[in-house]
Amino acid sequence: MYSSDKIKRSTELIDLFGRAPIKKTFGMVLSFNAQLEAVFEMSHNPDFEHALGDTHGGIIATLLDNAGWFTAAVQYETWIATIEMQIRLLKPAGKRDLRATGELVRAGRNFAVAQMRVQTTKGRLVALGSGTFAVTSAKL
Amino acid sequence: MYSSDKIKRSTELIDLFGRAPIKKTFGMVLSFNAQLEAVFEMSHNPDFEHALGDTHGGIIATLLDNAGWFTAAVQYETWIATIEMQIRLLKPAGKRDLRATGELVRAGRNFAVAQMRVQTTKGRLVALGSGTFAVTSAKL
Amino acid sequence: MYSSDKIKRSTELIDLFGRAPIKKTFGMVLSFNAQLEAVFEMSHNPDFEHALGDTHGGIIATLLDNAGWFTAAVQYETWIATIEMQIRLLKPAGKRDLRATGELVRAGRNFAVAQMRVQTTKGRLVALGSGTFAVTSAKL
Amino acid sequence: MYSSDKIKRSTELIDLFGRAPIKKTFGMVLSFNAQLEAVFEMSHNPDFEHALGDTHGGIIATLLDNAGWFTAAVQYETWIATIEMQIRLLKPAGKRDLRATGELVRAGRNFAVAQMRVQTTKGRLVALGSGTFAVTSAKL
Repeated sequence: MYSSDKIKRSTELIDLFGRAPIKKTFGMVLSFNAQLEAVFEMSHNPDFEHALGDTHGGIIATLLDNAGWFTAAVQYETWIATIEMQIRLLKPAGKRDLRATGELVRAGRNFAVAQMRVQTTKGRLVALGSGTFAVTSAKL
Repeated sequence: MYSSDKIKRSTELIDLFGRAPIKKTFGMVLSFNAQLEAVFEMSHNPDFEHALGDTHGGIIATLLDNAGWFTAAVQYETWIATIEMQIRLLKPAGKRDLRATGELVRAGRNFAVAQMRVQTTKGRLVALGSGTFAVTSAKL
Repeated sequence: MYSSDKIKRSTELIDLFGRAPIKKTFGMVLSFNAQLEAVFEMSHNPDFEHALGDTHGGIIATLLDNAGWFTAAVQYETWIATIEMQIRLLKPAGKRDLRATGELVRAGRNFAVAQMRVQTTKGRLVALGSGTFAVTSAKL
Repeated sequence: MYSSDKIKRSTELIDLFGRAPIKKTFGMVLSFNAQLEAVFEMSHNPDFEHALGDTHGGIIATLLDNAGWFTAAVQYETWIATIEMQIRLLKPAGKRDLRATGELVRAGRNFAVAQMRVQTTKGRLVALGSGTFAVTSAKL
């Protein structure tokens, strides 16, 4: 796609995410930076804590998945599907507000690859991830 | 630990999970099977759907993380920490109730390895995962 | 493909591997079991040891890649490409002869998923792996 | 360790690798850059090609494992063990000479995390990887 088409696509994807039930449930806010990488912000929410009182790894995984998926999705006109993801939890989130960012590694015809990171909004690294996203023929 | 200690430990872990905020938020139910592998059940919840109307991969990741963590945790007297996890999303959950199960691969002094799977409660395979869990000195 | 076509395909793949330079270099022997899963055997070779005197993890990775690739490849008429692989090194090989086996998890139109294991020929588990294999249009 | 101790350590590790049988077999050359990240160079070797005539993924995996292991090892006085590794093969090596580089992500008391990349010596990206390395008490 042309760059202008990708910018248009990023707006459509923000609308799409706005309609996703999980957006409201998790309170995540999506934007795209100047490189058209997806950025998700999520305020600390005690409802997502594990028994020792910090943000559950599954929530971090959700942020990583989202950041990679939307960073890859903006490159395509059809739906993509996360087929695998690897995540590394480096430090506890420490009850902080979190920001996840994607980085495009490869955007091929049949699948894309992205790397992702979660940091506190103050910039401390919490987790790294990477994933493969299969390109489908389904229209969004 | 002796087998009887592990059975006692599994009861403590069920209590621990019962106090975790995320348990209530996600509505997951933990039990241990006869091999002391953790089993999580979660009814379909439309609040956890992505924009195309199926359970979000991050929720599947949460189930996999939990299944692996508790399967490993029952082998230890102290807290363990998920340090990395790899997940494979094989089929959409199709709005079905889900069951996640862990399988212990290794329980070493400093870290454990587990494999996990998510199936619909009718037995269709949805996702596979595996992870490394570091053994800490923190008492639960 | 029909089952008879897959059996024919497994013979072609054994021929193909027989012509691969790496087959001779590594001294690996390929066969397929009754479930058409690839099985690789490799005698211990001191040339493949790391500085502490045991088989290098990269050799284990090669066995896992091969076992997964050929287990998936027998399902297709065209070339497949390993696009990602995750490996878990559980125990040192202990200078033993090794056997790697693949297990088919998914054989989709655009990509396949396999799980793999490396054991000593006496049956002790050494490593686990899993991978994604993209289906290309290239004829072998 | 102090920085001067790490520089000394990097020299010891180059000696160690020089004595490893696999170094000679694979013809890999190890150095450390100014950030004390391990850099491996390997000339193209047709003996390491798969049946379609390009460098086998297992060789790429060996380069990634080495780059991560030595980048982490320089941070410790004792032996470390690769316990898991995830690799992404992005582009065929195209019969080119290859260079692998590690990047330290975390150097904790019990385990380290590194990211790795393989490029052609002309700078084209071939593969990415990341891994966990357990710190043991074994003296090198």
